[in-house]
Amino acid sequence: MSRVLGGEYPVSADTRARVLRAVRELDYVADARAKAIAGSGTPTLAFVLEDITRPSFAHMAQGVEREAARLGHLCLVCSTDGNPKQEMGFIEMMRAQRAAAVILVGGAADTPEYRERTRKIADSLASAGSRLVLCGRPPLGPDAPVTAIEYDNEGGAHALVAHVLTQGHRRVLFLGGPPDHTTAQGRVRGYLDAHRARGLEPDPELLLHGDFTRDCGYRLMRRALAQRLEFTAVVAATDLVAAGALTALHEAGLDVPGDVSLAGYDDIPFARDLHPALTTVHVPYQELGRLAVRSALNRSAGNAATHLLLGTHVVVRDSVAHVGP
Amino acid sequence: MSRVLGGEYPVSADTRARVLRAVRELDYVADARAKAIAGSGTPTLAFVLEDITRPSFAHMAQGVEREAARLGHLCLVCSTDGNPKQEMGFIEMMRAQRAAAVILVGGAADTPEYRERTRKIADSLASAGSRLVLCGRPPLGPDAPVTAIEYDNEGGAHALVAHVLTQGHRRVLFLGGPPDHTTAQGRVRGYLDAHRARGLEPDPELLLHGDFTRDCGYRLMRRALAQRLEFTAVVAATDLVAAGALTALHEAGLDVPGDVSLAGYDDIPFARDLHPALTTVHVPYQELGRLAVRSALNRSAGNAATHLLLGTHVVVRDSVAHVGP
Repeated sequence: MSRVLGGEYPVSADTRARVLRAVRELDYVADARAKAIAGSGTPTLAFVLEDITRPSFAHMAQGVEREAARLGHLCLVCSTDGNPKQEMGFIEMMRAQRAAAVILVGGAADTPEYRERTRKIADSLASAGSRLVLCGRPPLGPDAPVTAIEYDNEGGAHALVAHVLTQGHRRVLFLGGPPDHTTAQGRVRGYLDAHRARGLEPDPELLLHGDFTRDCGYRLMRRALAQRLEFTAVVAATDLVAAGALTALHEAGLDVPGDVSLAGYDDIPFARDLHPALTTVHVPYQELGRLAVRSALNRSAGNAATHLLLGTHVVVRDSVAHVGP
Repeated sequence: MSRVLGGEYPVSADTRARVLRAVRELDYVADARAKAIAGSGTPTLAFVLEDITRPSFAHMAQGVEREAARLGHLCLVCSTDGNPKQEMGFIEMMRAQRAAAVILVGGAADTPEYRERTRKIADSLASAGSRLVLCGRPPLGPDAPVTAIEYDNEGGAHALVAHVLTQGHRRVLFLGGPPDHTTAQGRVRGYLDAHRARGLEPDPELLLHGDFTRDCGYRLMRRALAQRLEFTAVVAATDLVAAGALTALHEAGLDVPGDVSLAGYDDIPFARDLHPALTTVHVPYQELGRLAVRSALNRSAGNAATHLLLGTHVVVRDSVAHVGP
């Protein structure tokens, strides 16, 4: 049983009461269905993402779906639009289906509520013989029945920003990403560390937060230009943010990389079709998806790695130029 | 019962046998589960797409998921990678779940096999009180228990190509899309009709088929350039194809639209971030998804439109220029 249920985890009495009630409901409904379905039908895998229109998630989902198919499992996807009620409803259904694994992808705010909720889900799934896989999501403690697969946001951002600094840039704008979101935080940490590794302290004014969308990149870049913010390079939280920023720069009559250098993150297929082709960080999303499926299904086979970190690497294209002497 | 099952539909005896066997299997498994689950849990909606990485599908899925949530339904998505076995396994499961509707999206080859298979699915779902919705897929006969929602591929392509011809172009390359795929066929028909409406007969050499991906656009354009094919404008089957073609043109040192004009189809968000911003045809994918959900769920409420056609319109940006005298 989880810490929360075991009462070790420091939460208020009524939080615990809420958790316990939720678990009872979850178990009640789940068991009713599980008894009913058990044994029948194709083995399934479930994949939960927040926004189905984000290419990085879509490519991860494709990796999951292909590997699941290869291993004879049907993959069900649920796009929650960030709504925890939908996520819970789906997970409950997948538990009832005796899904072999439920894969949650995408960063989140790593709050006590997040950990409680996720731990509860992990225990509930485990008790039904199903495995929770966190893919790019904040992992739980080592004793949680969870497989965590992460990719190196911090290392990738560090290498990318080091490349930009090597080109002589000293005022580098960081664009986009929610400040409380672990994916964005990792990329910001890499941005800061790359500066500090060279004895530089970036101007806090140069950190502009938002979300991961194209529209956010466009909006933030327009604002930065309107405010006459000084910078010679931009590192976007995602390729989508970079695409919006690029259009805002073009509309302002600026040349990339002639006037401003620009880099993204994710290496989605579209990155090479931007003009100039976008320098970015490659994240192996397809492989992440495949790996999530394999590690979830192979546990029984003994090789139960429960925490994996995939590397990322910089892809140098044409959007970052040398400046200064 | 469907024509196939009723024996009116002209199919071979063994085809009918196969169909009947499949229906029995479907009913057997479905009923076993349906009995079990009936009544329990959140009402669900199912959405089946071929390729989760295609932005047009992703935006349709988002529309479905948001409208489903608004109406208190949980939406399950299945990406089949074009594998009918996966599609069937998912549909069977959704029938067992008593999903309110199963929405199939994306064009297909409109063959007798397609019609038989789809009709069988429609009847099986109907017998379980679930509704089949075909979204951009070839519709069945008027008597099939199906809601068909299409968008005007032909009209959109006609308007787009007319715009290109008005700019003085006379050799317009059509790029991408499988020749037997109804979505591609509609767009090709519009391309041909727009020419013929002006008394022009396009050179058959200028129709280069492939698929709907970015890589296909890149590959086909490189081949067209290598073959010294003569053209002053390119109309791509999708924005993704256009993106790949644009990169191939840039790599060949050609200016768009200075040397070659380029247009796409779909108006995915990225289209405006290409440089030059892409002239394309807007397809209301989000609204298509929302409409699919509403029309599937509102049937009981009496307003049972079973065949809807959504309009498309040209979005003129910067990628098509005037040529000639």
